[in-house]
This record gives sequence, structure tokens and C-alpha cells, in this order.
Amino acid sequence: MKRRTFLKQALSVSGALAAGGCISLPEMNSGYVDRKGKSMAGFRAPPMEKVRIGVIGLGHRGSGAIPRLAMLPNAEILALCDLIEDRVARQAKFLTEKGRPQPKCYAGSAEIWKTLCEQPDLDLIYICTPWLCHTPMAVHAMQCGKHAVTEVPAAVTVEQCWQLVDTSESTRKHFMMLENCCYGENELFALNLCRKGILGELVHGEGAYIHDLRASKWNAEQTGGYQGQWRLAWSQQHTGNPYPTHGLGPVCRYLDINRGDRMMTLTSMSSDPVGLARYAANKQIKATPIRQGDMNCTLIRTYRGRTILVQHDTTSPRPYSRLNLISGTKGCVADYPLRVALEPNAHQWMSAEELAKLKAAHAHPLWQKQGELARKQGGHGGMDFLMDYRLCHCLTQGLPLDMDVYDAASWSCLVELTETSVLKGGTKVDIPDFTRRGWITAARSEV
Amino acid sequence: MKRRTFLKQALSVSGALAAGGCISLPEMNSGYVDRKGKSMAGFRAPPMEKVRIGVIGLGHRGSGAIPRLAMLPNAEILALCDLIEDRVARQAKFLTEKGRPQPKCYAGSAEIWKTLCEQPDLDLIYICTPWLCHTPMAVHAMQCGKHAVTEVPAAVTVEQCWQLVDTSESTRKHFMMLENCCYGENELFALNLCRKGILGELVHGEGAYIHDLRASKWNAEQTGGYQGQWRLAWSQQHTGNPYPTHGLGPVCRYLDINRGDRMMTLTSMSSDPVGLARYAANKQIKATPIRQGDMNCTLIRTYRGRTILVQHDTTSPRPYSRLNLISGTKGCVADYPLRVALEPNAHQWMSAEELAKLKAAHAHPLWQKQGELARKQGGHGGMDFLMDYRLCHCLTQGLPLDMDVYDAASWSCLVELTETSVLKGGTKVDIPDFTRRGWITAARSEV
Repeated sequence: MKRRTFLKQALSVSGALAAGGCISLPEMNSGYVDRKGKSMAGFRAPPMEKVRIGVIGLGHRGSGAIPRLAMLPNAEILALCDLIEDRVARQAKFLTEKGRPQPKCYAGSAEIWKTLCEQPDLDLIYICTPWLCHTPMAVHAMQCGKHAVTEVPAAVTVEQCWQLVDTSESTRKHFMMLENCCYGENELFALNLCRKGILGELVHGEGAYIHDLRASKWNAEQTGGYQGQWRLAWSQQHTGNPYPTHGLGPVCRYLDINRGDRMMTLTSMSSDPVGLARYAANKQIKATPIRQGDMNCTLIRTYRGRTILVQHDTTSPRPYSRLNLISGTKGCVADYPLRVALEPNAHQWMSAEELAKLKAAHAHPLWQKQGELARKQGGHGGMDFLMDYRLCHCLTQGLPLDMDVYDAASWSCLVELTETSVLKGGTKVDIPDFTRRGWITAARSEV
Repeated sequence: MKRRTFLKQALSVSGALAAGGCISLPEMNSGYVDRKGKSMAGFRAPPMEKVRIGVIGLGHRGSGAIPRLAMLPNAEILALCDLIEDRVARQAKFLTEKGRPQPKCYAGSAEIWKTLCEQPDLDLIYICTPWLCHTPMAVHAMQCGKHAVTEVPAAVTVEQCWQLVDTSESTRKHFMMLENCCYGENELFALNLCRKGILGELVHGEGAYIHDLRASKWNAEQTGGYQGQWRLAWSQQHTGNPYPTHGLGPVCRYLDINRGDRMMTLTSMSSDPVGLARYAANKQIKATPIRQGDMNCTLIRTYRGRTILVQHDTTSPRPYSRLNLISGTKGCVADYPLRVALEPNAHQWMSAEELAKLKAAHAHPLWQKQGELARKQGGHGGMDFLMDYRLCHCLTQGLPLDMDVYDAASWSCLVELTETSVLKGGTKVDIPDFTRRGWITAARSEV
């Protein structure tokens, strides 16, 4: 009964957020209650023949997901939803032209996504809306008896992270964050090297999101920007690292975070916000004050004494990088471009020929088997396709998903916790154990 | 009178350290007294025709310095000192064979360096001993009326940093840390780009010392190790970043630290010590417990809101790197290998051709004029030669040195402060203002 009361409250919070298309900014709250739930680690849902999917949000990411999901023989898109009716109609047309069934279409109101979640013939709600909508929509979807996946980050506050965990545990529904970078060719190659012990004992990892988004932050949606400039709005109201998971996720998988180790503490520092204001001035855009520092660096220590560096910079003119570095007692992998150094010749990066040989010997099975198809399908070089492929494969086979709600929560909680640390000048902040000690015994995922 | 009392106490501390070749480890003490001294920023000593030098410490670094200094027409080595008599004799022979005067030779006792400092015809004491000897020797040298320079780090505690500052200020003698990396071709090129404003407003810098020293830490001096394994001893007794200045120094110069900005706070995290123990086990060396974490990451924030990342890893099998990254609102320089990205094409690194053009246009004057000679002289690609060249040039001309005692202190204090932060789990630590607010008005150095 208590749990039910809590969940009602949680839902009323998410309901409030959802109004106005979820674009209102929630209060942050890093305190949390020690609630007891039955672990979702290694959870298997009953197998299903086909995954019947409803997609919410058909902007940049959602409109890219439709053709990928439509490719999968074990998936069927049965519902589409967006604030804007045109987008829904366009994707529905695409599906029927591909010979797929006509999906149910939801559009025209800020609350219509709730009706989609209630549609009885759906197994999975696939959420590609702006950040602030992810948790409320996923929570409601699970409450409606559906598995739920969201774009990154899954949550923007620690409280939202707990909502995801609590709801997944109480409803016994999968929640997964669509962290596509965990399926990148280089990331899965590095994961394979880690799991085979080729890098020795792992010591330190680095991930980043260094991606100059100044233009798309300022632009209107029609010219390649974010609808209603929601990403800019976040920069105006928050600091810290709002988007940590592309770099952090793969490194957490290398380090078996939530499956034998866990992140304990972090400290975070940001440089002052300079770049966006200068950009606006140069483009003669009326600038509003920005709070988000240009470069954010976060240091994390794990229970087993490994360290992780996470960086975020979407403002500085720099080449794209996720760093993607993992260093062990026998060797090191770094990326952008991909480099490997192994004992006893670790004092220099391998030659292109040696690296090609190593990749041939240790490419991840997923890329060995599906790589050609994935590259053809595209989506960030194929990683998006492999993510969807694995998701639908695991659901139809009744397997645990590659990433669970604890991964989503522990990676996403950095959004709030980095801001907390930055606002206190780099003070050490504890990272909650969303697994409630389940990380000690949880097994590695298959991929 | 009070100052004199303090200095007497400081000297008695350094005297205690100096006994036994300075190898005893001092107690750390991060508290400091707000002493008032007359600033050494921009200090000019009376010009001299030749710099008459006494060199203490003829191991790896000292024996390399002799031929470089012997090359300089405005320098004369008039004294040599080492614990080991053979080394002194060998270098004296080298000098006389080069047609240079016979230097006075000091060897055979742990305290003999003090006698060298007292030799009246010397202007500069050039100190290349193990870390723990740097401050006590430099302090004594300045007390003896000589300018003093030491290898890096200049000090291993905050108290030692203040001793250097106080002694330099009270004796009106130069102190400079021999941070050769500040004279690297890529570093001076980056400095030039920064000073010309080509990178825009500077936002974030990164420096590192990633250098696998496992073999030389364990080896005896005869087989390429450190005498008495003093570097290993440090790893056994300390954690944090014991050797921050190769990466930090150049970045501080890009950011005008101590000349318009200053480092305010840091947080530091280390991974557990793993690599050295594994190395010893593989080599069947009897391992002693190691305290120093394999990878140390430190975040620093400056008064003007810029951030610096400093890394240290001398244990992991990785290719050498000092990172050497500086990022601004108009572009970015990164190193290992050298890469530059500039607006409006900053989304990719320049091609080799474009980079060559940029280097031709903006090579640092020091490398333009002296580069060919420097490369021929060697010493880490020429940087060691240019450092000595500038040092002797500024002394003979009566110019301020490129780096002053405040640089030495603020860069070296990380040795203790990173350990303090690491031992407290990454707690935020304040960085002392060794300039006593002098950074607000201090002018840029010529180089």
C-alpha cells in the first residue's frame, strides 16, 4: 500500500511535468528514500513472437528510429505519436509504403502520448522526446503494463532515476535507456578486449561528449535545431554535465559497473559559460544568459578503486570526440581515432596493420555477425541498428536486456549530481546505489 | 627580525632534510602563514657578463645538463657536485677536454653540496638531485647569495613552496624551476597561438605525465634506474600526483596563471595501486606495498573560470603523452600527435599541409631563431637547450626570467595538495596564492 501511495505521488509529479510537452523544468532533489524493491538485474520477461512497438516523439531521433525498426522482422510498429500531426502522418505513410501495417496515430495534444501508452496491443513504448519527457513517459508506460525505452539521458534528476527503478521493479517491466554508443564498433571491440582480459586488470576509463552544438542549439527546429530550443533552455537554467551517457555508458560496461563494481563518488568542475554568448554575439542573435559551463570535467571513483573521467563540451569549436579510453595493466585502447597499445610493445600505438589484425581476431561477435547489415542500415555507422536489433532479439527470446534500469539510473544521475558538485565548487558527491547492493552479485549481460 | 627568525627555522628544517642526501621524507603540512614579502614578479637582477654556474647532482638529468651548459658562450661551469666522486671526475674531464676551465669538484659526503653553495665566484646553483633535495638545496643556495634553479618538482610540500617564495623574496635572488616542457616546440607554438588570440578566449587546458616508468623505478641505478630507487620509495609512501609540472606548466603559461589569473581550487582522484605490484610479480621482484595510485586525475578551477585537467600515470603500459591540450572559443590545440582545429573549420583537425602552414606562420620566435641549433643540441628534442639558453640569456641581460618562484610554487604545490584531496576521497582543496595577490597586476614574461 505504501508503495502504491508513493507511485501515485510519483505519477502526479510526472503528470505535472508532462503538461506542456514536459518542457517545464523540474526542481532537483538529490535526497532519496531507501525503498526496497525486487531486483530487475537479469530480469527475463516472457518471450514474444514479435515486439509490438509504439513510438513517442518523431523529431530527429524518432524519425530515424522508424526505418530501423521497420527493418526488423521481429518488430512491428503499431502506434506513432508526436505533438505535430504532420510528422506522424509522414512516418505512418512510410510504414504502409514499406508494406507494414497502418499504425494508430496520436497527435495534436500534449497529453495524447498517455493514450498511446494505454493501447492494449503494444509490448514496448519507444520514447524519443526531449529529455524532460523521458522519465514521466517511461514511468507511465510501465504503469500501463508496457516495457519502456527512452533516448538519453533517461532522467534529469536523481528522483527521476529512482522513479524509473521503483516503477520497473514494481511493474516487472523492462526499462532500458537507448544508449546507442554502447553498440559502436569500436566500443564493442574494446568491450571484447576487456572481457577477454587482453588489457589486464582495468584501471581507468574516459568518456566524453565533445560535440559543437552551438548552431543547432540556437537554430529553430525547421533549420536543424531543437524544437522550441529545449536544449538551449537547459543550458540557460543548468550547469554540470547534462548529457553524460554517450561517453560514460561504454566505459561502465568495460568496468562491469552494476555487475561486480559500482560508481561511489564524483567531483565535477565546469569552466565558465563563454562560448555560447560569443557565438550569439557573432551571429547577432539576442543572447540570453547561459549557465552551463563550456567544458565540464567529472571524476568518478568506483568501489573497486578504478577511476573514470567524463567530459562534456557542446560549445567549443573542437572536432567531435567521445574519448572512449580504457586503460589496464596490460594495455590501453583510445579512440578518435581508434588506437591500441599492448604489452610488451605498449610504449607505442600499434601500426594500422597490427590493429587490423587485432580487430580481425577480437571483433565483437555482434559486429562479426551483423556488422555488414548494420553498416548498410546506418544510424551513426550502424550502432543504432544493432541497438534496436539486440533490444528486439532479447525481448522476443525472453532474455535479459543488455542494459537495465540500474544502468540507466546510475549513468543518468550524473545530470543532477554533476550540477550539485559544480555549484559547490567541485565538492565530492556520493552516487546512489540504485541496485541496492544488487551490483555485488549481478551477472554480466551477454552483450 | 621576525622574518629572520622564520628563515632560521626554515633552514633548520631544510638542514634536517638535507642530512642523508635529502632522502628522508618530510612531514606534509598544508597550513601556511600569511607572511608578507616583496614580490619577485618581474624581478631583474643586475646583468652579468657570464653566468658562473655550480651544478649539484650529476645523475640522469645533471649529466645531460653539462654538455648543454658547456655549449653556451655566456655560461661557465665553475663547480660540480655529486655524492659519487666518479661522476664528478667524469664531467670535469668532459669540460676540460672541451677547453673549458677546470671546475672545482665536490663529492664524497651528503653535506658537501653546502660547500659548493658557499663558493664565492658562482652566480647560479643548478640543482639536478632527487626531488626531496630540491627545496633545501635551493633555499641554502639563495641564502648563500646565489640564484637557484632546480629540476621538477621544485618542492614536495606546500611548506617547501612557501620556503622557496620567502627565501627568494628575502634574498632578492631568482628561483626558477627547470620546467623544460615549457620550451617544447609544440608548447611554444601553442603559447604563441594563445597569445596572438588565435584560439579566442581560453576555456580549458589539459596536461599530463603519462610515462611508463615501471622498469626504471625498480631497476638499480646501474641498469637505468633511480639511485637508491628514490622514485619507487615515493610511490611506496605517497599517493596523488607527485610529478605534475610537465603537463601543468605549459598549460599555466597558456592561461597566464600568476599573470592575470590564478589557480583557486583542485580536486583529485587516484585509481588503486595495481600496476607496480603486477609488474614486480611478473619480474619475480619482491614487491613492497605501493601507495601511489596508477592513474591520478586532478581538476583545477581558476579565478577567471577556466578549468585544467592534470593526469599522472607512470605505471600503466601506455604510449608517452603530456596531452598538452588548450581549448578556446575559436579553436583547439591538442598534442600526441600535434593537432590544431580552428574556426570556421574546427569540426575537424587541420590536414598536415594546413598545419605546416600554420606552424610556419606562428612558430614561436625562440624556435624560429634557435630551433635548428636546439634540435642539433638535443635534450628532449631541443627544449632542454632552449631552457638553458633562455636562463643564461635573461641572467646576463638582467631580464626577468621566463618562469619565477611563484610559478615553481604554484605548480609544485600540487604534489601535496593532490595527495590531500585523494586521501579525502576527492575533496575540494584550496590552492594557496603564493603571489599574495601579485597575480592581479603581474605582467606576462617575454617568453
